[in-house]
Amino acid sequence: MLLTRFFLPVLKENPKEAEIISHIYMLRAGMIQQSASGIYSWLPLGKIVLEKITEICRQEMIKSGANEILMPTLQSAEIWKESGRYEDYGKEMLRIKDRNNRNLLYGPTNEELVTEIFRTHVKSYKELPLNLFHIQWKFRDELRPRFGVMRGREFLMKDAYSFDVDYKSSIDSYNKMFMAYMQLFKKMGLKAIPMKADTGPIGGDLSHEFIIIADTGESEVYVEKELLNFEGSFASINYNDDLQEEVNKFTSFYAATEEKHNPSNISDVNNNLIKARGIEVGHIFHFGQKYSLPMKANISDTIGNNIPVFMGSYGVGLSRLVGAVIEANHDDKGIIWPKEITPWDYNIINLKSGDDECEKICLNLYKIMNKNSLKVLYDDTDERAGTKLARADLIGLPYQIIIGPKGIKDQLYDVKFRKSGDISRLSYDELLNFVQTN
Amino acid sequence: MLLTRFFLPVLKENPKEAEIISHIYMLRAGMIQQSASGIYSWLPLGKIVLEKITEICRQEMIKSGANEILMPTLQSAEIWKESGRYEDYGKEMLRIKDRNNRNLLYGPTNEELVTEIFRTHVKSYKELPLNLFHIQWKFRDELRPRFGVMRGREFLMKDAYSFDVDYKSSIDSYNKMFMAYMQLFKKMGLKAIPMKADTGPIGGDLSHEFIIIADTGESEVYVEKELLNFEGSFASINYNDDLQEEVNKFTSFYAATEEKHNPSNISDVNNNLIKARGIEVGHIFHFGQKYSLPMKANISDTIGNNIPVFMGSYGVGLSRLVGAVIEANHDDKGIIWPKEITPWDYNIINLKSGDDECEKICLNLYKIMNKNSLKVLYDDTDERAGTKLARADLIGLPYQIIIGPKGIKDQLYDVKFRKSGDISRLSYDELLNFVQTN
Repeated sequence: MLLTRFFLPVLKENPKEAEIISHIYMLRAGMIQQSASGIYSWLPLGKIVLEKITEICRQEMIKSGANEILMPTLQSAEIWKESGRYEDYGKEMLRIKDRNNRNLLYGPTNEELVTEIFRTHVKSYKELPLNLFHIQWKFRDELRPRFGVMRGREFLMKDAYSFDVDYKSSIDSYNKMFMAYMQLFKKMGLKAIPMKADTGPIGGDLSHEFIIIADTGESEVYVEKELLNFEGSFASINYNDDLQEEVNKFTSFYAATEEKHNPSNISDVNNNLIKARGIEVGHIFHFGQKYSLPMKANISDTIGNNIPVFMGSYGVGLSRLVGAVIEANHDDKGIIWPKEITPWDYNIINLKSGDDECEKICLNLYKIMNKNSLKVLYDDTDERAGTKLARADLIGLPYQIIIGPKGIKDQLYDVKFRKSGDISRLSYDELLNFVQTN
Repeated sequence: MLLTRFFLPVLKENPKEAEIISHIYMLRAGMIQQSASGIYSWLPLGKIVLEKITEICRQEMIKSGANEILMPTLQSAEIWKESGRYEDYGKEMLRIKDRNNRNLLYGPTNEELVTEIFRTHVKSYKELPLNLFHIQWKFRDELRPRFGVMRGREFLMKDAYSFDVDYKSSIDSYNKMFMAYMQLFKKMGLKAIPMKADTGPIGGDLSHEFIIIADTGESEVYVEKELLNFEGSFASINYNDDLQEEVNKFTSFYAATEEKHNPSNISDVNNNLIKARGIEVGHIFHFGQKYSLPMKANISDTIGNNIPVFMGSYGVGLSRLVGAVIEANHDDKGIIWPKEITPWDYNIINLKSGDDECEKICLNLYKIMNKNSLKVLYDDTDERAGTKLARADLIGLPYQIIIGPKGIKDQLYDVKFRKSGDISRLSYDELLNFVQTN
């Protein structure tokens, strides 16, 4: 991509309204723009990253055997009355009246709607297990929206819903999602820690949050040291297997958010316990027949009984993840994208626009890299070198290829590694070799 | 994809609520389900087709040089008051009050919001031309939602917005979108006819609708016969060229919707004029400074004057297109997908489940085709042959590979072409050769 053709409106100053680093950098790097309190537009750089995160999540859901659907943003109030949550949900639910005075609401979550889809079509255990997921905007009317996309009102969520014939099978489905979550966060370049969690307004008997450790995290967490470095056996995961043992490997460690933390449970691990701050990026729930019972989502089981189906639900906060990644990956100059979700891998920077030789080398490189399907942003603007270098650090692509008159004279070109700040000086051939084998 | 792992809840009977064929087939083929009046959930088969159509549209926008952003579904009423449309828009606008009693609305279109984004960041002609597009759900509170996704209330739209320094450049941008639309509909396997159109609540001096001819179309159209078969010179389109001449090739024909039809303009083409019915799938508008003037979206032009930017907007109805494609491509047995947007190309049908030889050949074929990255749905259910064949016709994949005991005995296997109904009987090697070279 040529930067002159890419809409990247960076800000030079820290915006006053932003309190936390991800919000500051997302505004400064031209990733988002506030449209209303807690409601954001995603500008091109933000959109690319959001899309990458979404696609990793989608692919892992598909791999786990889930079917993708797409439920609407607006829902009828009727089904929420059936489940009993219409009154319970409180002011975070955005209630709407249409022109015919019918009650709609902007979905904050989709247990009711997916249960309605299920009960319309599925009548027998033979069609189970079933997992339906969708990726759609949600709305929760937070009293005090803040921290940019980290606590917005309109936010993008992947939510999946499992349906099973009995308790045991539905725990299998829960375990499958547990492991899928460990996988998908890893594929985003993130270390997510599973923690026992409260079930809140979703309900149920079993729940885990997935937490990214970051100094600026919103909540306090207590984690056994070993869990922070524990990887599990990802390579060998087969979603058709019983995954209880794999899940146990993670849940055998002590890990809890502040609200669930109970010092009396951890006498034997106290020495290894770390207190840290974390950001919730996923939350899974097992709630059995909580919705299927009142909503009469019944199936015939293997012995011919008509029973309410067993369910769980599984959420990943996709728009929030963009902020969470930045909270966990930045320095005082800007964002440092993990390679798994970086908008591009390489940033070619022409230090002296208008200089024929600089432009020629940059353009050659750019063409060769595109031909080799490398992901590259070429800063071909006519701005000052200092402006370009500061912007490159701010937007945080992993490798900066910096071309200026001095490099051309010496026939040595700088490659700067954004994360470490290290610079390698390479000949043209070494440079080509570096990008093609990196 | 194995059908036993795919959520495809087909209906045997025509649903009572559906009046037109696309609505009937989308319900029967398990593509959509109504959640509330004019509000639909997309089930897996529908989601796949919607995604294919969306992706073709997205790629053509990117190719034309447009930048993808993503604006939220909810907007502040404030900017609509600035443009003067908040009162004008009428009851189709869904107005919402949040918990703090602030006025929001569910965006029916995004001229105001994108103009706000523009004016925040762009101040000079040097940053132009600029085209920002997004793909997002919109809401129009239709008085009588009907015809399924063809006239829904919540619908998916691609909308693009162009910004230019002067009238001439903004016409260039308009022409670029005109040709991009011709391209993207063609890439969906559709013949869209551009017609002069009214500008309605968007406003402006120049507008075209893109219409698909279908007997069940909602509006009457008058088209010169030659235009129906005119292809233009698509292969040679370069978005950096001045495209006026290419656009003229289309607009030189007479084509008008009923409301724009004026028999006195067409004396010389009367003999060639065809009256038909059509479905609107795209609409483009040139409206110059209509929004930039009241909203003070000013830029400095080449001679240093501060002027309101020139704009146009360009919409494609993505969810509606799924219905429109079916209206234009079906028979009395079901849908006939154009190959460009079919969910899969091949449908393997095992006529006798439980028969070892049938299952073996089907599974072998399925594996080989997957290995060769062919898109295939394998009906591995244990249902009756008649049920499977009827379902295959209903969901409309281009090629059915039908394996039964008789074929195995003769070592000749049926390939049925969904569109023509023709059947070829092929040996196993011929069959492999057919799918690999087709």
